[in-house]
Amino acid sequence: MTGSLVAGVDIGGTKAAALVVDEAGETRGRAVEPMAGRSATGIEPIVAAVRAALEAAGAGDGDLGAIGVGVPGRIDSVAGTVSLATNLGWHELPLARLIRNEFGVPCGVANDVGLAASGLIGHEIVRGARSLAYVAVGTGIGAGLVLDGRLHQGDRGLAGEIGHAIADPDGAVCRCGQRGCVETVASGPFIARRAAAALAAALATGTPPDAHPLLTSGPPITAKTVYEAAAAGDTIALAIAHEAGRTLAHAIEALMLTCDLELVLLGGGVAGAGPPFLEPITAELDRARSASALVALMIPPGSVRVLPEQFDAVARGGVALARRLIRTDPPNPLHGDTEEEVVARASWT
Amino acid sequence: MTGSLVAGVDIGGTKAAALVVDEAGETRGRAVEPMAGRSATGIEPIVAAVRAALEAAGAGDGDLGAIGVGVPGRIDSVAGTVSLATNLGWHELPLARLIRNEFGVPCGVANDVGLAASGLIGHEIVRGARSLAYVAVGTGIGAGLVLDGRLHQGDRGLAGEIGHAIADPDGAVCRCGQRGCVETVASGPFIARRAAAALAAALATGTPPDAHPLLTSGPPITAKTVYEAAAAGDTIALAIAHEAGRTLAHAIEALMLTCDLELVLLGGGVAGAGPPFLEPITAELDRARSASALVALMIPPGSVRVLPEQFDAVARGGVALARRLIRTDPPNPLHGDTEEEVVARASWT
Repeated sequence: MTGSLVAGVDIGGTKAAALVVDEAGETRGRAVEPMAGRSATGIEPIVAAVRAALEAAGAGDGDLGAIGVGVPGRIDSVAGTVSLATNLGWHELPLARLIRNEFGVPCGVANDVGLAASGLIGHEIVRGARSLAYVAVGTGIGAGLVLDGRLHQGDRGLAGEIGHAIADPDGAVCRCGQRGCVETVASGPFIARRAAAALAAALATGTPPDAHPLLTSGPPITAKTVYEAAAAGDTIALAIAHEAGRTLAHAIEALMLTCDLELVLLGGGVAGAGPPFLEPITAELDRARSASALVALMIPPGSVRVLPEQFDAVARGGVALARRLIRTDPPNPLHGDTEEEVVARASWT
Repeated sequence: MTGSLVAGVDIGGTKAAALVVDEAGETRGRAVEPMAGRSATGIEPIVAAVRAALEAAGAGDGDLGAIGVGVPGRIDSVAGTVSLATNLGWHELPLARLIRNEFGVPCGVANDVGLAASGLIGHEIVRGARSLAYVAVGTGIGAGLVLDGRLHQGDRGLAGEIGHAIADPDGAVCRCGQRGCVETVASGPFIARRAAAALAAALATGTPPDAHPLLTSGPPITAKTVYEAAAAGDTIALAIAHEAGRTLAHAIEALMLTCDLELVLLGGGVAGAGPPFLEPITAELDRARSASALVALMIPPGSVRVLPEQFDAVARGGVALARRLIRTDPPNPLHGDTEEEVVARASWT
């Protein structure tokens, strides 16, 4: 017998975040586990996060009905296999089966940003929108696209790779190998790297360290510390945040001009910085709207927003996927259903 | 009584091109009329082009069964009204009705690049592809998108406006008002303007005029003369063609990474230059493939092609639309069909 709670899991390069939700849609528990130190199959942090979220909900394995998991990679949603997730070192990993075996409940696996975008459709936060992009800005930058109410996965299941469009042909070398991708200006690791380089250059020209207290003291520079320093008025951090925002604005503009969407919703670790992250994006979009009637028409004010920090669109998408698994479960032998087929039917295709 | 021939019309900023095709799909006649000197409603060149193409086919008005028209603008496909076509000066023009009244046969009107993309699906030239973009490079730059076999028009019917994505934030001012749009580097008028400016700068520094014979002698510089000069080895023309190709390659790459398509097919006046147009695009895409496994996977060799010069994808899309009008014509009063409804049913939605 399975329970009435469902879990949604957001797997990232650095952490697995789980959300446990009850039948009424109320969040009952949350937990985050670091992805570091995992084994080759790597599901320990996922299992630990789900169990910790269940515990936070005052519940246990027996209360769980289904699990939906979002992974930053290419997924075979019918088999529940992660076919490629470079940042996680996974290749042809049967993740759905491994998790199902652990908890004894149905598990669906999908690409993280696509799962987030699908899960947002119908949520009150999107106010009835039928076409939107969820843009994750974190270790990488990618978009999940819902067009005319349907998830658009593309010919190879790779639609939404906007982070590797070229922003500056003479820019830095990206982890993908190209020069000047959007990620080389606006992803978390590159924001940190650019700030560290700019700080080093400033110090080399004789700027006193106490001119940049938040960048020179304390922990190593990360995107988070850069945005905190920007919020406090640090000139180096403001310049880096401005460049990242301008580049993201151009990437969002290209996405909206190409797909003609109602909404773009920003999430992910870097977007969690809030106003210092959003302000330079909004400023650049405002400038573009003033210059161009086409941009004003296609990207009206309010059409590009940051999701609330605690929203976790990927884990919520996982919850929605888990609910669909429960609705179509148990397998019906009269219809010749196997569990794989039930999972496949409930997957986002 | 109506005839068995159908006409497809490609309306551009400078000319209307008509194609007359028989029931077997054979092209029977072609004609082109300049759009200059037309009246406010502007349909004279369209009517003249269709009549001239019929004459070239050895036929007349009575042999015509239906007409499909592609217009560079925003179309209400249900009413057959051009709601906005800035380059043509049209606003709320009931184009389908005007043409229908002239020829007494059904007429459908659609956005030109969308019509071209739709018409390409199923054609042998796309070898069974179900997702593709038709990218027109001419006076402007825009894409028609077919995703999973269906035309994607977007929330406002404006999807595919890739020509106004930002290629160079510090670039020239575009006719849309923004700075550095893709069109400011790679559209016909800007290619001509950049070549003229580069030539003037070279002559000002003492370069003899006969170092650039094709650019300094003969007719005013156009994109066509620039590509002819590039093909002949002119250094200024080669540099301009290289920059245009690199910028187009980045725009195509962004489109493929975003939508994950099988094919991109290039058409339009500038693309008609052939190899000197395509070579710098291919060179840049090859460079990106060598650098990035993701690009190599998502934009494999052969996935970006130029359509043959005589192909005219927009007029062919018009022919396909006209055929659909014939298949659903005459209106069936038992079903309460009006002619508008028949046209609407046959439109690309």
